[in-house]
Amino acid sequence: MVPAEYLGIIAGIFTTFSTIPQIMRVYKLRSAREISLLFNASMLLGIVIWLIYGIVLGLVSIIIWNSIGIALNSWLLFAKLKYGRAKSI
Amino acid sequence: MVPAEYLGIIAGIFTTFSTIPQIMRVYKLRSAREISLLFNASMLLGIVIWLIYGIVLGLVSIIIWNSIGIALNSWLLFAKLKYGRAKSI
Repeated sequence: MVPAEYLGIIAGIFTTFSTIPQIMRVYKLRSAREISLLFNASMLLGIVIWLIYGIVLGLVSIIIWNSIGIALNSWLLFAKLKYGRAKSI
Repeated sequence: MVPAEYLGIIAGIFTTFSTIPQIMRVYKLRSAREISLLFNASMLLGIVIWLIYGIVLGLVSIIIWNSIGIALNSWLLFAKLKYGRAKSI
């Protein structure tokens, strides 16, 4: 692992785990009307491609964080579909 | 630019631009109560570190998307602070 990967480990703690308080907020309010479905779906699709990018270039932090990101954003998408009640994206 | 960077360009279109429909949704509803401030702030901080990571490793797509991401997430943070009306994170 090259030294810069440690920077990637720190960066990912903030970007990937940022999804957790958002998921918690949706469950607390039991509402996800303001969460954009297009935001959620687009983010999830992009993260899958970032994971492939990380695998191709052998970037450890990109692989780790995007794998966890797929799980967390799938959870947020589930919460959005459960509490969304919105027809608009 | 190595070939894998094209994959990064595509990935970033989805992850970075996903913030746009979220910003639009907040402005449309004039409410950002459900948007977690901790999500927003943590994402922004993480993106800044990812940008440094991209610069150190010379990864073009990481640099491009995180630069744009800083602008878009700052805008979302502005919208959250404007329409948030929430004391909880």
